[in-house]
Amino acid sequence: MKEQIKVIAFDADDTLWENETYFRNSEEKFAMLLSDFMPPHDVNRALLRVEISNIPSLGYGVKSFIISMIEAAMEISDGRLHTDDIQRIIQIGKDQLAKPVHLIDGVQEVLNRLQRKYRLVMATKGDLKEQESKLIKSGLEAYFHHIEILSEKKEANYKKLISHLDVKPDQFLMIGNSLKSDIIPVLELGAYAVHVPFHTTWEYEKVESKIEHEKFSHIEDIKELLEILL
Amino acid sequence: MKEQIKVIAFDADDTLWENETYFRNSEEKFAMLLSDFMPPHDVNRALLRVEISNIPSLGYGVKSFIISMIEAAMEISDGRLHTDDIQRIIQIGKDQLAKPVHLIDGVQEVLNRLQRKYRLVMATKGDLKEQESKLIKSGLEAYFHHIEILSEKKEANYKKLISHLDVKPDQFLMIGNSLKSDIIPVLELGAYAVHVPFHTTWEYEKVESKIEHEKFSHIEDIKELLEILL
Repeated sequence: MKEQIKVIAFDADDTLWENETYFRNSEEKFAMLLSDFMPPHDVNRALLRVEISNIPSLGYGVKSFIISMIEAAMEISDGRLHTDDIQRIIQIGKDQLAKPVHLIDGVQEVLNRLQRKYRLVMATKGDLKEQESKLIKSGLEAYFHHIEILSEKKEANYKKLISHLDVKPDQFLMIGNSLKSDIIPVLELGAYAVHVPFHTTWEYEKVESKIEHEKFSHIEDIKELLEILL
Repeated sequence: MKEQIKVIAFDADDTLWENETYFRNSEEKFAMLLSDFMPPHDVNRALLRVEISNIPSLGYGVKSFIISMIEAAMEISDGRLHTDDIQRIIQIGKDQLAKPVHLIDGVQEVLNRLQRKYRLVMATKGDLKEQESKLIKSGLEAYFHHIEILSEKKEANYKKLISHLDVKPDQFLMIGNSLKSDIIPVLELGAYAVHVPFHTTWEYEKVESKIEHEKFSHIEDIKELLEILL
């Protein structure tokens, strides 16, 4: 494949930098706050339900997460929540937004070496403001020829991106941790995809299937890209 | 100027479609909800203060607005707010997101005629998910060669956009209702700008200055663009 590829697109959250761990951490604080009303596992289940129901109207990111936590808290406590706790919930989200960005081990070296041979882009899903702020904190901006923040990562979104980049699907490689968002829609279009799992996956992004496809590869560590692509 | 211009960029909120009126409407509902604690004018002032303090971390859009309303309500009621009211506040925001898009009179004809001679782009500030959803509801997507949703509308953001569009600043014309966001930073870069005021302006976007600049025009109705540009 390395003879063909012209553009390599990287997912950001949990591919270039840690993200899901911060959400898990906020969820734990949230469950603790509601422990008088419900055991933690059930709190998380109720929260996930509210989050998924809010995706069509609110999308992804910490702001939606804050609103979903508040709604879930009202539901879980049956309205008996103290108003101070609402402020605490908002603070959980704001603290998460203020966290530093932790790069995944090896990312900087991989980008630095790949950029000499390929055009690199970042293709991430989520909230514009949050993703831009993480990109700036990450110090990785200069490696990317183009940054694309998508409201969803579905086939139509990738199709638009690839045409905008002026390449054919088989000259495009996507790298990411989510089979559902980074791999399956990309393979459907006839492009290449490499899966690098992160140790934690959000329930909503989990898919069961095992992928067998000639344009698909699976690696355990992002540094293995150098062997495949150089 | 019409001999030079290659790309015309349109602001969206309150330039192509109504937006500020929806926020004003939500603010009225919010002030009503808190009328036991404070007169409406003071509620609005308190809310604006919270909104402005949240822009650096939360950015623009209805989700930030929901969170700011909740925070302002806690402050205004000194924590004595009933938890049901929190749910009502979230609903005010969700209702706003679900509103249909009302095009400003003449927009469709203007875009239709200008697209034959110029490359049209949409350059709007705000929340990715919300702006995409409004664009789809507006039915205007097909008129635009490119859609750019910016986290801020400052000189650096426009500079990047113009270079991405592969034109020189004096081949670029920006049209919008906000002097602060659509006009001043664009003129600073040496590009052209046309101001079309909307009847309502958010306090935060208001500027006092009167602009005199050779690359600046002011019109009262978007349909006047046809006289200037064709």
